[in-house]
Amino acid sequence: MIIIGELINGSRDSVKQAIASRDKKYIADLTVREDEAGADFIDCNPGTIGEQESNDMQWLVETIQVATDKPISFDSPNPQAIRRGLATYSGEAMPMINSVTLEPGSVEKMLPIVLEAKVNVVALALGEGGMPTQPGQREQVAQQIIDRLTAGGIEPEQIFVDPVIAPLSTATEVSQHIFQAIAAIRDYGPKCHITCGLSNISFGLPNRQLMNRAFIGPAMQAGMDSAVMDPLDEQLMAQVIATEALLGEDEFCMNYLQAYRAGKLDV
Amino acid sequence: MIIIGELINGSRDSVKQAIASRDKKYIADLTVREDEAGADFIDCNPGTIGEQESNDMQWLVETIQVATDKPISFDSPNPQAIRRGLATYSGEAMPMINSVTLEPGSVEKMLPIVLEAKVNVVALALGEGGMPTQPGQREQVAQQIIDRLTAGGIEPEQIFVDPVIAPLSTATEVSQHIFQAIAAIRDYGPKCHITCGLSNISFGLPNRQLMNRAFIGPAMQAGMDSAVMDPLDEQLMAQVIATEALLGEDEFCMNYLQAYRAGKLDV
Repeated sequence: MIIIGELINGSRDSVKQAIASRDKKYIADLTVREDEAGADFIDCNPGTIGEQESNDMQWLVETIQVATDKPISFDSPNPQAIRRGLATYSGEAMPMINSVTLEPGSVEKMLPIVLEAKVNVVALALGEGGMPTQPGQREQVAQQIIDRLTAGGIEPEQIFVDPVIAPLSTATEVSQHIFQAIAAIRDYGPKCHITCGLSNISFGLPNRQLMNRAFIGPAMQAGMDSAVMDPLDEQLMAQVIATEALLGEDEFCMNYLQAYRAGKLDV
Repeated sequence: MIIIGELINGSRDSVKQAIASRDKKYIADLTVREDEAGADFIDCNPGTIGEQESNDMQWLVETIQVATDKPISFDSPNPQAIRRGLATYSGEAMPMINSVTLEPGSVEKMLPIVLEAKVNVVALALGEGGMPTQPGQREQVAQQIIDRLTAGGIEPEQIFVDPVIAPLSTATEVSQHIFQAIAAIRDYGPKCHITCGLSNISFGLPNRQLMNRAFIGPAMQAGMDSAVMDPLDEQLMAQVIATEALLGEDEFCMNYLQAYRAGKLDV
């Protein structure tokens, strides 16, 4: 699993405050914790708007990359903020843009940036109609966005398709639609990655971490190989490690046993 | 999920001792705990041999059925012990025989009992060659045993096919073979139940409960609707409840929310 650590997000109060007060130590600590817990990308979402967002993105990227060599995921719908993040980024590893959609204007604005900077990109299966509501809709929009990006010159390996996780509390069949969409996207783009904003599944329900954990197994089995998630959720991380072993991605359970010896499975 | 509580098993030291000393209180307490935790069947395996096994089966059944109205699963390869269990059983609900296989003699001995007593039966996908080792073997044997039992007059709804869980520690691809077998059996026998001896998957690995939990989601998604398992494992039970909601088997998450209010999801 390619884990995109979600914690540096301005919608979280503590992070919002740290950004506002330019608290480098807080952001650097959080970065190190996500890194050490196993994040492959550090998502960076200032959560502000306009010119402020670009300035915050620059400060966050400067702060994060002092603390880790892991690539950053620039998380914003605002191309200016993304560009500022990219201009600030000095890492070796290919970073990520989160995200592009099929909503009017999005691909047009983001495609040139993705091409120019040679970055990974989260492609959210949002069409002109916004949130998918019908079965089959996610995969349809996902196929269109894969076609659009690859036709524009993006390699499939750079594309992280996100089937758009809607809360299970909104409709009993939501997760089944998502599992079907993941399987269909895996068929359509075998070289693409499939990611998701994991914790959306449990929105509105109690014991959200339990529901997030339960979602991971069937989603990985269907073909999901990445998630935007909390790498500090130890039970979730242990579930990922066990599921990788069950899906044949961990020969002789070496990684599982190593995680056990490192005390990471004591959950 | 149809949960077959596995704890009353003579291979467990405490149960072995309780059987030997005819400790009614211990067995009755364990029965009540399995029942209250959500077991749908109480598995009953004396773990002894010969005439002793029949006597122990009778005593166990007498003791269990005082403590619960849940049906009993008579767990033995010995037709005499099974017959004694059935003769002792006075419950209303259809009990279960665990198990029949395609090994020489098994069907011939067990089929008349299943037909006569009108019981559920666990059909273990063990052919003449014993443990399956190749991909596709489980589903092949399972199809043969389904054919054999239904041709003999057993209703598909009475059949609990067990694809035979081998430890993941023995081969990296074992669980994938099992998930594929479950999906194929679900296709072949849509009205049959699919069960398994869950904890076999984690044999030889540390943190077995974590691996058992991780197995449940992909297995249920593939079509498994039952398991012989420990209903007192609260994290496992919570995982089952969350997975049922994710697979569309819990309208409006009513059961999930009810379990939450009952404190069953605090894991």
